[in-house]
Amino acid sequence: MFPDRLRQVQAGVQAALDDALSDCADIAVVHAMRYALRGGKRIRAFLVIEGAALFGIPMSRAMPAAAAVEALHAYSLIHDDLPCMDDDDLRRGQPTVHVKWDEATAVLAGDALQTLAFELCCDPILGPSDRRLDLVQTLARASGAEGMVLGQALDIAAETAPEPLTLAEITALQAGKTGALISFAAEAGAILAGADRKPLAAYARALGLAFQIADDILDVEGDPGKAGKRLGKDAGAGKATFISHLGLAGAKSRALALIEEAQTALLPYGATAENLREAARFVISREM
Amino acid sequence: MFPDRLRQVQAGVQAALDDALSDCADIAVVHAMRYALRGGKRIRAFLVIEGAALFGIPMSRAMPAAAAVEALHAYSLIHDDLPCMDDDDLRRGQPTVHVKWDEATAVLAGDALQTLAFELCCDPILGPSDRRLDLVQTLARASGAEGMVLGQALDIAAETAPEPLTLAEITALQAGKTGALISFAAEAGAILAGADRKPLAAYARALGLAFQIADDILDVEGDPGKAGKRLGKDAGAGKATFISHLGLAGAKSRALALIEEAQTALLPYGATAENLREAARFVISREM
Repeated sequence: MFPDRLRQVQAGVQAALDDALSDCADIAVVHAMRYALRGGKRIRAFLVIEGAALFGIPMSRAMPAAAAVEALHAYSLIHDDLPCMDDDDLRRGQPTVHVKWDEATAVLAGDALQTLAFELCCDPILGPSDRRLDLVQTLARASGAEGMVLGQALDIAAETAPEPLTLAEITALQAGKTGALISFAAEAGAILAGADRKPLAAYARALGLAFQIADDILDVEGDPGKAGKRLGKDAGAGKATFISHLGLAGAKSRALALIEEAQTALLPYGATAENLREAARFVISREM
Repeated sequence: MFPDRLRQVQAGVQAALDDALSDCADIAVVHAMRYALRGGKRIRAFLVIEGAALFGIPMSRAMPAAAAVEALHAYSLIHDDLPCMDDDDLRRGQPTVHVKWDEATAVLAGDALQTLAFELCCDPILGPSDRRLDLVQTLARASGAEGMVLGQALDIAAETAPEPLTLAEITALQAGKTGALISFAAEAGAILAGADRKPLAAYARALGLAFQIADDILDVEGDPGKAGKRLGKDAGAGKATFISHLGLAGAKSRALALIEEAQTALLPYGATAENLREAARFVISREM
């Protein structure tokens, strides 16, 4: 059930993203945007679609919000991969945008994907304008200087910090860098429904942290072929991670506890939340 | 009247931008955002405020939209100045962000300023949610891959094009690069009022083009001390400009004709549009 549904979401979100760029000029920046929007697990889109399904909102009516979170995510990856940031040359098994094109194209493609994310949130199919505006505002807060960008800035600052980060500092960093957008994705359905976001917010907080711990584990234990990106970077850079603080076994058990917590947060939704429960298990099972 | 009003807008928009960042973390990216938001003529903010005034909307009720367009503009300047783009080290008489901090901080500060622009458009003081959403959507279209980013991409492509751009191509490039955001600024008041945007759109089209021709003239004739940025770049780079096509005298008379056209577009608003008429004259009088 879950893999089928994930594939359905993947196909739907790809179609929505292709459609959003169909009228754009035939220039390198737009080609780079399409390239960066291809592939990926689409777990954020899945959270949007399944969060919306809890409130009876069909996939088609939530799809632009799912496409928005993937566009926002793709922008952040392009910019994070830049030579002046993480300087990565491989992403999803393919050359990164600045390697395939150049840095100027990568900066502009990222910029325009951020813009596209906000434009997608305005799609009338998402429902009444006050809810779409709520979506825009929530996405802005999640991704700006108090959310994702803050997390990325803290991550860069950590590289030259005199002391390795504490566990609390790593947790705060990750809450911004990956957690904020996962929270947006999980809460989007409740926003579209005008419903209480608290249970989904609690689910997302635990899921986001588990996701990042799983990423640290993947960096140590993963298969580079499957991961499609450079691994072993953090240990190589002597960077403090969840594993350097908790050990590999400790990190795994912490991730499992968080997945438990995420699933508990879904109790109010009963059986309708089964796909979200499976998504949580999927997040930590990627390479564990 | 006009200089006083412009100073009022400058003070108001600076206060709004300071306020928007007041709760942010004490980190380099946020310092760089504040730095990039300082100074500037604020002509875009002025267009928002005066456009709103045509429909009886007071400055305080339009201010977040004015702050949004200045945040969006500041993001575009930071990214345009990057070494991989125009590689400028001076802006408004001060070191550019990547010179004062570094490239990573410049990328992130620009990213977060774009996000801030969309967040500012959600401010409830701007009025009913459908109009705020209209503002978000119009800003997104003006600044993304079919607007400002397209213009910047065409500008970069022009540098390696085998032939100099034609006048039509330069006009299209500038319509995206500077025109789209000027159009947003001029139309914002009509959007907030739920009024017909056509007269302000016609005003902005002519004004935006005049603005860019004036910029080309400034690049040739300007005083680097007053301009606060490197001049003579375009001629030095053998770049096609309005002046290389029209000659200096031809460019000046074209700019004057466009200002005439901009003023004619304001006829439906009578005397209430006097400040917008003066703004148009100001745009081409900067250094002519």
